[in-house]
Amino acid sequence: MNRLYKYSLPAAVGALGIFTLTSPALAQDAAKATMTMDAKYVFNTLLFLIGGFLVMWMAAGFAMLEAGLVRSKNVSMQCTKNISLFAIAGLMFWITGYNLMYEGVDGGFMGSFGPKAIPDPAKDAGDYSASSDWFFQMVFCATTASIVSGTLAERIKIWPFLIFTALLTGFIYPIQGSWEWGTGWLDKMGFSDFAGSTLVHSAGGWAALAGALILGARIGKYGKDGRVHPMPGSSMPLATLGTFILWLGWFGFNGASQLAMGTISDAASVSKIFVNTNMAAAAGVMVAITLTQVLYKKIDITMALNGALAGLVSITAEPLMPSVVQAIFIGGIGGAIVVFVVPLLDKLKIDDVVGAIPVHLVAGIWGTMIVPWSNSDASFGVQAIGVAAIGAFVFFSSSIIWLALKATIGIRPTAEEERLGLDAVEIGIEAYPEFSKGGSPV
Amino acid sequence: MNRLYKYSLPAAVGALGIFTLTSPALAQDAAKATMTMDAKYVFNTLLFLIGGFLVMWMAAGFAMLEAGLVRSKNVSMQCTKNISLFAIAGLMFWITGYNLMYEGVDGGFMGSFGPKAIPDPAKDAGDYSASSDWFFQMVFCATTASIVSGTLAERIKIWPFLIFTALLTGFIYPIQGSWEWGTGWLDKMGFSDFAGSTLVHSAGGWAALAGALILGARIGKYGKDGRVHPMPGSSMPLATLGTFILWLGWFGFNGASQLAMGTISDAASVSKIFVNTNMAAAAGVMVAITLTQVLYKKIDITMALNGALAGLVSITAEPLMPSVVQAIFIGGIGGAIVVFVVPLLDKLKIDDVVGAIPVHLVAGIWGTMIVPWSNSDASFGVQAIGVAAIGAFVFFSSSIIWLALKATIGIRPTAEEERLGLDAVEIGIEAYPEFSKGGSPV
Amino acid sequence: MNRLYKYSLPAAVGALGIFTLTSPALAQDAAKATMTMDAKYVFNTLLFLIGGFLVMWMAAGFAMLEAGLVRSKNVSMQCTKNISLFAIAGLMFWITGYNLMYEGVDGGFMGSFGPKAIPDPAKDAGDYSASSDWFFQMVFCATTASIVSGTLAERIKIWPFLIFTALLTGFIYPIQGSWEWGTGWLDKMGFSDFAGSTLVHSAGGWAALAGALILGARIGKYGKDGRVHPMPGSSMPLATLGTFILWLGWFGFNGASQLAMGTISDAASVSKIFVNTNMAAAAGVMVAITLTQVLYKKIDITMALNGALAGLVSITAEPLMPSVVQAIFIGGIGGAIVVFVVPLLDKLKIDDVVGAIPVHLVAGIWGTMIVPWSNSDASFGVQAIGVAAIGAFVFFSSSIIWLALKATIGIRPTAEEERLGLDAVEIGIEAYPEFSKGGSPV
Repeated sequence: MNRLYKYSLPAAVGALGIFTLTSPALAQDAAKATMTMDAKYVFNTLLFLIGGFLVMWMAAGFAMLEAGLVRSKNVSMQCTKNISLFAIAGLMFWITGYNLMYEGVDGGFMGSFGPKAIPDPAKDAGDYSASSDWFFQMVFCATTASIVSGTLAERIKIWPFLIFTALLTGFIYPIQGSWEWGTGWLDKMGFSDFAGSTLVHSAGGWAALAGALILGARIGKYGKDGRVHPMPGSSMPLATLGTFILWLGWFGFNGASQLAMGTISDAASVSKIFVNTNMAAAAGVMVAITLTQVLYKKIDITMALNGALAGLVSITAEPLMPSVVQAIFIGGIGGAIVVFVVPLLDKLKIDDVVGAIPVHLVAGIWGTMIVPWSNSDASFGVQAIGVAAIGAFVFFSSSIIWLALKATIGIRPTAEEERLGLDAVEIGIEAYPEFSKGGSPV
Repeated sequence: MNRLYKYSLPAAVGALGIFTLTSPALAQDAAKATMTMDAKYVFNTLLFLIGGFLVMWMAAGFAMLEAGLVRSKNVSMQCTKNISLFAIAGLMFWITGYNLMYEGVDGGFMGSFGPKAIPDPAKDAGDYSASSDWFFQMVFCATTASIVSGTLAERIKIWPFLIFTALLTGFIYPIQGSWEWGTGWLDKMGFSDFAGSTLVHSAGGWAALAGALILGARIGKYGKDGRVHPMPGSSMPLATLGTFILWLGWFGFNGASQLAMGTISDAASVSKIFVNTNMAAAAGVMVAITLTQVLYKKIDITMALNGALAGLVSITAEPLMPSVVQAIFIGGIGGAIVVFVVPLLDKLKIDDVVGAIPVHLVAGIWGTMIVPWSNSDASFGVQAIGVAAIGAFVFFSSSIIWLALKATIGIRPTAEEERLGLDAVEIGIEAYPEFSKGGSPV
Repeated sequence: MNRLYKYSLPAAVGALGIFTLTSPALAQDAAKATMTMDAKYVFNTLLFLIGGFLVMWMAAGFAMLEAGLVRSKNVSMQCTKNISLFAIAGLMFWITGYNLMYEGVDGGFMGSFGPKAIPDPAKDAGDYSASSDWFFQMVFCATTASIVSGTLAERIKIWPFLIFTALLTGFIYPIQGSWEWGTGWLDKMGFSDFAGSTLVHSAGGWAALAGALILGARIGKYGKDGRVHPMPGSSMPLATLGTFILWLGWFGFNGASQLAMGTISDAASVSKIFVNTNMAAAAGVMVAITLTQVLYKKIDITMALNGALAGLVSITAEPLMPSVVQAIFIGGIGGAIVVFVVPLLDKLKIDDVVGAIPVHLVAGIWGTMIVPWSNSDASFGVQAIGVAAIGAFVFFSSSIIWLALKATIGIRPTAEEERLGLDAVEIGIEAYPEFSKGGSPV
């Protein structure tokens, strides 16, 4: 489903012609009717604004999750990256992103260039405010960038990361986004990604994976003897806070992706999405804590947190059509994915500091592929084409950028700098100057 | 007041019969009228969704409050418990909770068994979306479970706690809830608990008290010489953050318990509830800081935070009818309750780690009993019956479960495990691996 | 623009007279029309409530920002101050503040004394609920007090601070606020401050500056050799969290200052405000990180955070009229202000612990003075008069109060107490009892 042309007047209502003020004789009826349309406009706009600020809040969730899951010597860096990437996403999605994604795509591979025009409120007509739509779409773009930040933590220099962020949010994300939500070729083909399991989460995951492969693992993470050296995060309560923020924000992420709230049916759909979204997250938690208890005899809190997130990512491709039982199943598999893919990545020596690849990439693929189970308009074949096409495009274009950055300004600090911690080297302000500065002994 | 059948068309409007589409001739009027009803439906649904996500956010508040008030060796455990209990509450309130609480109670002692049916959006009729109502009621159920978590911190094994949570959220909470909000016998008798001073807060408090008595105090908390050994929490800023989150969430908790926003009167009621809720919390803070200054020559920050929460709990039974002066008084007494009951519990050697019993149980009783002061439909006698009946039921049924768990899988770690901290023993991941691991010397 | 009498029916609609129920014959039309007006009322009220809870949440943002930017020995104190000041602001703005600011000002210098009457919901008529308006205006008042808290951290006793807060929120803020938002003399003159760059942020900044001058710098901050001794904050992730909370809350701060959402034009205006607010913050971040990189060869995270906030303050005087490019420019200059004014204050030996003076006072003046660039109704001359008049009044009246407090109960702890940290001396509970207590070596 595209995210552009959803709104249309119910034909029956439009046919009555009551919404056009044609003569003084109709003035009284029209006054009432206009308010009727006003209410719809305001409701739709309000949905974008509320959903938008909830998704904006997810930027803080990623910041806290990552601050909690990196070692204390890299926490200031991680915080700086997260607030900066949100700033960059806002600027780039205005300069090129929105129009590339939504302007004149029409079955094609991208829209047009140039900044998004923010209309004068007096002329901001339609079924919702164009500015509210821009704001809502922008925070989705920022989410994609947030995903990359966690995987590459503790060993990337800040400026190349920020340059990559600018290119991701200004070009890569909007181009692949145009294929579906901008009514591009994937949308015409029948691909279905309601709120972005693929367009946001997998896309971010592919960009992160490309970076992780090109950047390499943190020094000491994978021993020469094949042992994986654990590097525990500095603050579990901050990681928990981040997860709760993301869970909260996801009600906006999925719920407001209904894109309208001005009818009974739309409001009921938003409500059902809230329920399914919550159920998938809950199932993700339960599967993750049960599996880690069974496998390791202890509950792993980072798996519990990532289990919630993977449940959320899994339901994001189709949060509306599944029954509650389906939502629980979809989210629960997401939780299992985290438990099994995290150690698998370590076996492959892909160093994903916060687990973003299992959560966003793998669970995102799972969520997208399972859409046909509940939505008969979707087909496994087309879903696979979408997953593969977007994966290939994002992975390939991201790799080129990472390689270009590596070849020019360099993307990785020296080994000595990495040992010291990026806070000391690039930020100059420690996260916790009065507490231990140890970090794990490497 | 029950929470089921609040909505009815104003008689005058209903009598006009304009909201039913009976003939083509009425199509134009009906189109306008339908939108009118749509707006009401959307407003009511939106109130549930906004209120719902604010109360969902309270789960994060409890997590942060408790993470801040336990020693660092038990912080990962407390975080794990809080995210898991929110997951369990969502699942259990769907599997049995909602229907037990709301389906066919009609003056009785419980509803029916079986999962809540989430309607298809196209058929989700009424004055609000059924899914939005489910979501809103579910987060209240989760709040009850959150209350238990804090009291029992630092000395309970996680799985028995989670099993108890499942039984609390799937059975105990909904059964007692059905008595009032499900139009059960207490509602018929005239009991009044607007947003849950008794049904949520005291209920959670009684379950916590039963657990605390059966579990016993933390090792070393109460010396043999009668001295109380202070065990200060690990992070005051996290406890403060948790309190602010709860304060914020409470606007949804009390405000959206108006259950409707589609009329001027309802919207004005929600607004007045916001004001009274804030005033009660403010008074709770001021009384707590003033009393601790006078009694101890210093302000006790944990009392300030719990004072805010006790003010909030106190006003929850009736946030609409009190004048501002009454709200200040009601909340202020809540703040005083905290200051006096916390040391009292210590005298009784009841080890309530975060102060949840004074805040939720005692202030919850206070708030319920003072309802008749501002609401002439309530009587002290019936309020007392409700408080006693729900207290007896929750305390008794919780005690049976705690005793059964104690007798079977056991609820308490060994003394050695408790000394080590539950993070090391049951979670395997320390909360702050790079900082001190000391904890208070016991 | 004042914040009182914004609402009026579009003349055309009012002229139709359809909104008054005058005879039984009009009952059917009236039923529909009333709902129409109801929707407007509910939308406006909802805007106040949503905006209000977002701005309330900013109190948590200030608490976290300040908790992160002070040394660990003063964190409990800072948390206590922040929750207490929010409580006091609520009480004082009810007892005297609201009426002083909004009741019968009419071109004058203040309103009337006495508590704000909270109407019975059944009689809460108009275009929005009076209670929702009170709530929204109250949280602005609280914001002003939050600003003062940060500047004066680490060296002020709590009770004089709280007494000052009571006088600021009950008298100083409302009196100067009445000049503009209460339709006082500045409003009549044509002063323009949409959401409070001057009325909230500069006002808070002036009060903070007066306090900082009278209180003096922290011991050891400015060495006898002229060197500035850095005293790094205890937790960058908490400071980052606080900044994200403030950024989120600012959508309510600026967006809901449109004061109405019940028409297409108002909803579109709120949306445009969201966009501009975000853009200004984004620009503030980018300018701050770029400038600190260029000047110091490292990104300074505290500058990045304060850059976001300065961008937000800068756009607050006029978030509606600027184009996106203008918003970026306005916010970007805000970011530059932070980078240049922070060291300037140190040169002047004005010890502003969290940077509130550059962020709120200087960027607030900048934002106010640049209004005429995008809003042709404003003039530089009148803007300057407003900035000067409010600055003089707040600085002068604050100074008198600080001096009176200094002369009576004293405002500063002893040097020994300051070295120990205020948590030990006045709160009695350390923020992080299990971690290092060092603080910077002074």
